[in-house]
Amino acid sequence: MNEKFITFEGGEGAGKTSVILELAVFLKEEGFDFITTREPGGIQIAESIRQIILDTNNTAMDGRTEALLYAAARRQHLVEKVIPELNASKIVLCDRFLDSSLVYQGIARAIGFDEVLSINNFAIENCMPKLTFYFDIEPEKGLARIAKNKDREINRLDKENLDFHYKVREGYLRLLAMFPERIIRIDAERPLEEVVLETKKKLTTYLNLIMEDSR
Amino acid sequence: MNEKFITFEGGEGAGKTSVILELAVFLKEEGFDFITTREPGGIQIAESIRQIILDTNNTAMDGRTEALLYAAARRQHLVEKVIPELNASKIVLCDRFLDSSLVYQGIARAIGFDEVLSINNFAIENCMPKLTFYFDIEPEKGLARIAKNKDREINRLDKENLDFHYKVREGYLRLLAMFPERIIRIDAERPLEEVVLETKKKLTTYLNLIMEDSR
Repeated sequence: MNEKFITFEGGEGAGKTSVILELAVFLKEEGFDFITTREPGGIQIAESIRQIILDTNNTAMDGRTEALLYAAARRQHLVEKVIPELNASKIVLCDRFLDSSLVYQGIARAIGFDEVLSINNFAIENCMPKLTFYFDIEPEKGLARIAKNKDREINRLDKENLDFHYKVREGYLRLLAMFPERIIRIDAERPLEEVVLETKKKLTTYLNLIMEDSR
Repeated sequence: MNEKFITFEGGEGAGKTSVILELAVFLKEEGFDFITTREPGGIQIAESIRQIILDTNNTAMDGRTEALLYAAARRQHLVEKVIPELNASKIVLCDRFLDSSLVYQGIARAIGFDEVLSINNFAIENCMPKLTFYFDIEPEKGLARIAKNKDREINRLDKENLDFHYKVREGYLRLLAMFPERIIRIDAERPLEEVVLETKKKLTTYLNLIMEDSR
């Protein structure tokens, strides 16, 4: 079932959200049965949790509190949305998932990779994606892209200092080395069209493979 | 440090909140330096989390989401309030703590004792109370007390069926057997004055003991 669960990861300004939009157009044209989502994904409880996390007034928030809140929102989005769609045989493209917590809380905030993994294992109960695209970009370049885009609201996480974003990238590269069979690195410093083209190709190869298997 | 951290546990209508009020009057008269608190304890982030948990509209809430939210609120209350007060050498009386999650989520909702313990260990990082009073009452008697008290708002947990409340009691009795050195059972079916008297006596004995030790 989980083989149709595909996630997208990357630091700030890596462009993953734009890529997912292009992929959705492509998958629709090709006639695939899919949904795109991101935590909290319109799930009422998860939306309320996200409001607490991103509230710029909550500067006193402890790193472990934040990690537990992300795990809670993830759980609810998973059981209310992702799992029902997978059970209906749909492909689920999810913008950020467990890896984001491992990297942002576990590594960048130094709570500990294994400890953050443990609360997330509680949250997901083995429902892991089978394929993850990691959009890799140098933090300064990613942040410069965000600064240009004035429509995008700046939230509490964007305000972290540059050092934090370098740790995030280091974290993703560590994950890539740990899970080479699941995570595909995409060089996201290139123009969007090139990034989209490569992702489309690799996604198509994967989808053809699992669709063949299920015949 | 944790030896001054004392918690109060029990099912619905056991009267623990009333007992804590009486204990506070007593401790003040005796000149002890203490605070009373309960999660979320006026901590802004924890209050916001509690609103999500107790919202009667959130009927779709998954048991694991709820357990993660309780752990998050617990963490923030602990780091913003309990630990600073303990560091200032105050006695901290806390209305409900980790045991409530083990019993309500771990046992009554059948998520699993060990799994709920694991996310709570992440939340508290070894900051466990050294003494816990458990107010034991038959669920039907406890719920009847609540029904009489019309000033008290009925929340989502009160609405659980009777079977749930029996599991809660079973859970507490299991904890009592597991941690006899930490948890003291108080028979809460008796009139309030008797319950208060016994708790006062046992609390005084304990406080005298730890105050002697610290001389």
